[in-house]
Amino acid sequence: MATVGDIAVSAFVNVLLWFIFLAAFAFMRIQPVNDRVYFPKLYLSAGRRNPRSGETNWVWKHFSLNVWSWIRAFLGWMPEALRTSQANVIRDAGLDSAVYLRIYILGFKIFVPITLLALLVLIPVNASGGTLFNMTSKIVSSDIDKLSISNVGEGSQRLWVHIFMTYLFTIWACYVLYMEYGNIAFMRLHFLSSQRRSVDQFTVAVRNVPSVGGHSIPESVDSFFKRNHPDHYLGHQAVYNANKISKLMKKKEGLQNWLDYYQLKFERYPGRKPTKKSGFLGLWGERVDTIAYYKEKINEIDKKIAFQRQRILKDPKAVLPVAFVVFDSRWAAAVCAQTQQSKNPTQWLTSWAPEPRDVYWQNLAIPLVSLNIRRLVVSVLVFALIFFYMIPIAFVQSLANLEGLEKVAPFLRPVIELKLIKSFIQGYVPGLVLKIFLYFLPGILMILSKLEGYLSLSSLERKTASKYYYFMLVNVFLGSIIAGTAFEQLYSFLHQSATQIPRTIGLGIPMKATFFITYIMADGWTGIAYEILRLKPLVIYHIKNMFFVKTERDREKATDPGSVELRETLPNLELYFLLGLVYAVVSPILLPFVLVFFGFAYAVYRHQIINVYNQEYESAGAFWPHVHGRIIGSLLISHVLLLGLLSVKRAAYSTPLLVILPVLTLSFHKYCKSRFEPAFRRYPLEEAMEKDAVEKAAEPGLNLKAYLADAYLHPIFQSFEEVELGDFNVDKHQTHRSLPVVESSPPRSEVNSPSSPHYVYHFEIEP
Amino acid sequence: MATVGDIAVSAFVNVLLWFIFLAAFAFMRIQPVNDRVYFPKLYLSAGRRNPRSGETNWVWKHFSLNVWSWIRAFLGWMPEALRTSQANVIRDAGLDSAVYLRIYILGFKIFVPITLLALLVLIPVNASGGTLFNMTSKIVSSDIDKLSISNVGEGSQRLWVHIFMTYLFTIWACYVLYMEYGNIAFMRLHFLSSQRRSVDQFTVAVRNVPSVGGHSIPESVDSFFKRNHPDHYLGHQAVYNANKISKLMKKKEGLQNWLDYYQLKFERYPGRKPTKKSGFLGLWGERVDTIAYYKEKINEIDKKIAFQRQRILKDPKAVLPVAFVVFDSRWAAAVCAQTQQSKNPTQWLTSWAPEPRDVYWQNLAIPLVSLNIRRLVVSVLVFALIFFYMIPIAFVQSLANLEGLEKVAPFLRPVIELKLIKSFIQGYVPGLVLKIFLYFLPGILMILSKLEGYLSLSSLERKTASKYYYFMLVNVFLGSIIAGTAFEQLYSFLHQSATQIPRTIGLGIPMKATFFITYIMADGWTGIAYEILRLKPLVIYHIKNMFFVKTERDREKATDPGSVELRETLPNLELYFLLGLVYAVVSPILLPFVLVFFGFAYAVYRHQIINVYNQEYESAGAFWPHVHGRIIGSLLISHVLLLGLLSVKRAAYSTPLLVILPVLTLSFHKYCKSRFEPAFRRYPLEEAMEKDAVEKAAEPGLNLKAYLADAYLHPIFQSFEEVELGDFNVDKHQTHRSLPVVESSPPRSEVNSPSSPHYVYHFEIEP
Repeated sequence: MATVGDIAVSAFVNVLLWFIFLAAFAFMRIQPVNDRVYFPKLYLSAGRRNPRSGETNWVWKHFSLNVWSWIRAFLGWMPEALRTSQANVIRDAGLDSAVYLRIYILGFKIFVPITLLALLVLIPVNASGGTLFNMTSKIVSSDIDKLSISNVGEGSQRLWVHIFMTYLFTIWACYVLYMEYGNIAFMRLHFLSSQRRSVDQFTVAVRNVPSVGGHSIPESVDSFFKRNHPDHYLGHQAVYNANKISKLMKKKEGLQNWLDYYQLKFERYPGRKPTKKSGFLGLWGERVDTIAYYKEKINEIDKKIAFQRQRILKDPKAVLPVAFVVFDSRWAAAVCAQTQQSKNPTQWLTSWAPEPRDVYWQNLAIPLVSLNIRRLVVSVLVFALIFFYMIPIAFVQSLANLEGLEKVAPFLRPVIELKLIKSFIQGYVPGLVLKIFLYFLPGILMILSKLEGYLSLSSLERKTASKYYYFMLVNVFLGSIIAGTAFEQLYSFLHQSATQIPRTIGLGIPMKATFFITYIMADGWTGIAYEILRLKPLVIYHIKNMFFVKTERDREKATDPGSVELRETLPNLELYFLLGLVYAVVSPILLPFVLVFFGFAYAVYRHQIINVYNQEYESAGAFWPHVHGRIIGSLLISHVLLLGLLSVKRAAYSTPLLVILPVLTLSFHKYCKSRFEPAFRRYPLEEAMEKDAVEKAAEPGLNLKAYLADAYLHPIFQSFEEVELGDFNVDKHQTHRSLPVVESSPPRSEVNSPSSPHYVYHFEIEP
Repeated sequence: MATVGDIAVSAFVNVLLWFIFLAAFAFMRIQPVNDRVYFPKLYLSAGRRNPRSGETNWVWKHFSLNVWSWIRAFLGWMPEALRTSQANVIRDAGLDSAVYLRIYILGFKIFVPITLLALLVLIPVNASGGTLFNMTSKIVSSDIDKLSISNVGEGSQRLWVHIFMTYLFTIWACYVLYMEYGNIAFMRLHFLSSQRRSVDQFTVAVRNVPSVGGHSIPESVDSFFKRNHPDHYLGHQAVYNANKISKLMKKKEGLQNWLDYYQLKFERYPGRKPTKKSGFLGLWGERVDTIAYYKEKINEIDKKIAFQRQRILKDPKAVLPVAFVVFDSRWAAAVCAQTQQSKNPTQWLTSWAPEPRDVYWQNLAIPLVSLNIRRLVVSVLVFALIFFYMIPIAFVQSLANLEGLEKVAPFLRPVIELKLIKSFIQGYVPGLVLKIFLYFLPGILMILSKLEGYLSLSSLERKTASKYYYFMLVNVFLGSIIAGTAFEQLYSFLHQSATQIPRTIGLGIPMKATFFITYIMADGWTGIAYEILRLKPLVIYHIKNMFFVKTERDREKATDPGSVELRETLPNLELYFLLGLVYAVVSPILLPFVLVFFGFAYAVYRHQIINVYNQEYESAGAFWPHVHGRIIGSLLISHVLLLGLLSVKRAAYSTPLLVILPVLTLSFHKYCKSRFEPAFRRYPLEEAMEKDAVEKAAEPGLNLKAYLADAYLHPIFQSFEEVELGDFNVDKHQTHRSLPVVESSPPRSEVNSPSSPHYVYHFEIEP
């Protein structure tokens, strides 16, 4: 139960850090040498060139020490970022980014009126606590708790105000959510309908293709769709199991990097020819010429790749039971994606094809049979990760414990006994282990999601976000309120009655307001300021620049624009909604801090999306229903906790009133689901038909077959460039029926996808 | 804790009743006068005639006192019923009936091996209870409890056997369920594909049709489907709000019955002309000639009907925003039913049209906006009904309490004080009130389901069955194990921890084995024997025969063949699965009783389906996933309860083993769902295409438009028979564009639907 003073100290520290980060950002940003780190998006999309590239003085070309421009840059980025219109954001960064930014706006819309009402009504009600007279003196000297519901006596009639406010807040939140869902559904449909022609509109991904009667997969696909969609089937793209080549390519890239590095080194210091030992990790073995060594290695891998490629093209087993089937109209593709094809419901599973850059190719090779088992195993693992993650960490921490370490590795004793190392191990290592784990957590969750076998990067990201949210809900939110590990919570929940659990948590909630205020300042204010500084990409860029960059193209490759990283940012954002909604009635003093977060983070992410991030794919806001559901979930959690809190306060009359609220909220959610969600899952035929008609009228002579020819080629084949085109085609013709190869290079899905790989090889399609 | 003796007494009483019912059935059945009660199905489908209709002696014609034929009939019906092949059952009674019967077979398949194993392994293990030696002496003299898990000591190693058996039983049940799901899915697809051409295969029900730009509903439907399904749209059938006419028709029918009754009376006793008072309930007013009075009343209603009909046809508001849209192929209908049509996901909702006799016409008039609210309200009501149904009943019962009654109606005091009436009120009325409530319960639940707004009778029946099952689960199963009302249970569950609840129930379970054994004998043995006796239809038939029947056609109308009444029989059946699975490990002595139920009920229902019931509609086994889900639910309940029971027995090692089991069962269920359920919800395009192709080859010149013309006409219009056809058409032509009226009477959905109404009037369809 911290005082206002404690909060003030924390606020001072955080604001100071915030100021330092922003100042550092402003300084770094105006340095021409960092231009690629802070404006990569502009380089990629608008073809920006370094502003001082014409400069001849080396220092002037790379550094800027102008104090004025520094001060201008300090907060100047903010109005600049806010000035760009939403339409421009959609055009330059896609709908995903625009919808992501709208979540912050949504937070603003929900919490501004709630904050005002809560501060004006609830704070006085709480603060007066039963006696209205000594109010002023209390506020000045009181703890944060005096402003919360804790200050209201048991069974007080004042609690009616809180119940009324809960209703008001819930209704307001639902109203705003409803309008927003409608808005975003409209934006999505508008985006999809105004989108330029793209291959995914005509394509359906088919999984679990059976090989019928000894025919090969491509033949089966052909005959099946010719039979069941005779008027609209155009052709299909077989998918090859290129995961091996993919691995070889990655290995080759790594070797190439080293080769580049040594060649660069040799160029700079031509005297010293680099050599290395050929054995394990370069530790032993014969000493050889490094450059020749790497060249030879790369040669070897090239041969392996060529061999694998031959094998893939000749072996019918390398064709996966998956295909991208192409139709002659959006209508036909929409029909095929939404209907059941086969009598056996586990075969010929159709779904919208993700756009080519959104496909997660590795998962196409997973046989569908194992998917059920995979999902079961992963959900058990995620459950274990959420509730028992402390166990392995505690184990590692116990190793860091001095006695334990000495036992395991007695030879380390003399080192450990040094005072400095001793205090380091005792003081920092346990915390460090936890931090390292949390740093890798989103990656671990992503790997788990990949194991589940989803086909597109966007769905992988959504699934990871959802797992991460549950982790945060249990370990950050509940874990902070009820002290103890998640496992201890689970144990106590299992042994408490259904009415006792919300009471336990409800009691803890007002007491933790101070903690969450400092959490918001540290994570939401300072953390976001650190995000805009981009310290890690900055360092990596300069390291790469130092060692690998020879040409301008290398420099481009060294730039990592990053992306919004929905898997991490969404759950964080949703946690703020949860905090805001739970504390709105209980301890409204927390609300202004949440509001500052929404405002500042909005500006930062808007700036980053416009200048920095490069989106990896476009899902047209497919993650919105997920966000909507989490906010509804937060409302429900806030109702249940208030119910528990009030039952402790002996306000029995409140129970029926507060039981109705979640029921109504849930049915509101159900209604929203039926009203809007289909817009995110299915493509209406009306829409498809309209677009087909418009296109037919505008371009009557369009050669769709040519346009769709090589859209869904495994990105690995992009490396077999024009030079190899000739003999590769011959290979193809041996395995499949020979058909005129499409030779024109048609326009492809180009929704501002500057980084989308450019496939040069043309696969033919069997019509 | 009843002894074997108690059970024996109960068994004796029930077997005696069982014998009496069967004997009565055998006697009644061979009476020619009852022939229509016991063989109505044969009259309807096979055109059976009374076996003694040629007889001239009145007694011989109507009665049979032959003892030999009585004895032959006593059990002779059983082999007769079992002899018919499943293919014949499907042909004569539809797939629904066949699938229903297969549930009993499933019960057999699951429980025969389980019973054998349990009796051979578990009973000895339980009975020996730790000391194997004095086993024989114990079995003879012991309570039922000695054979149950209660007899095994705390922490005994013998509990491993129970855990192992639970695994074995679960695996076996899942295996049988899997095979059966596959079987039934196959049967369904086969049935659908071998079905003769029927209108519902080409028809899609469209709900929430918006009126676009001031056009009428039929015009909107036409233009929408012409635009979005240009190649396949044939036409549509508008739906009129005929609920008012429907009510008038019902009223007319009632008056007609009375008219018939008085006319018959007058014919028999021509001397006495019947008269009645014209006022309320015939209690006061002028005395008039009854026959003339009813004739006049009927005339009045006829005029009202004619007026309503005119109104409906002229008023565009009488056209509901619902339509039955007809396509030129099954493929196109399947596509339309499975895809989203409109950009606004709440408009133009398409689904498979139920077959015409399955349509629940009243619900077509419900605006979709209110459906969400209706479902919310109904689910709250069902919850209240399940948990608080004792409150109104206790209230009525308290009225039946003597002092209460005297207070409410003091004038009744002299009557109440009579000893006989006093004891009747005190002894029987409370029980009677409960029985009356339970008798009406399925009807009440059906009304609630109708309020939810489902379009087809089959789905209404499924929803009612599901509600009834929950009622039984809470009030019969849990209510018997934990004494007390459902409300008291709810209260105690809310105040117990999640680990305590299964413990409480688990402890109660073995003790209640005796109760459930007597329950099975009373409800499952005697109750089923009562079902075959058909006492109620028998009495009603003879009453009707006495008062209303003039012609053979009237006699046909007086016959009520009844139907399987899935809404009641399915939940009952599912309860037996629950009992069997829960007690399989806990108290296996219950299993043989369950087995007898499955065997006997199978024979009875097979007999009834072949000879008696007339199915109202055909849903091709659409209720199967529901049954499968309930059995899986029973498995889960049995696991949780065993977990609770074993935790009381201090077998802590069992917890992890028994936690894995429900997780595995659930994922098995999920797998089954994805593997088989689409076969019950969607119509695969492959299948549709095949049937279309076969039909096109067989009947190239088929006039589909004529065939589909008037399929989905509100049954109310059937009464406007040929006589009125002329002027009705003229009316139609004024409201819609005039088109050549289809005059031929095409074959219609005739899957053995002898009772399906025969529409004579032909609506035209706008192509």
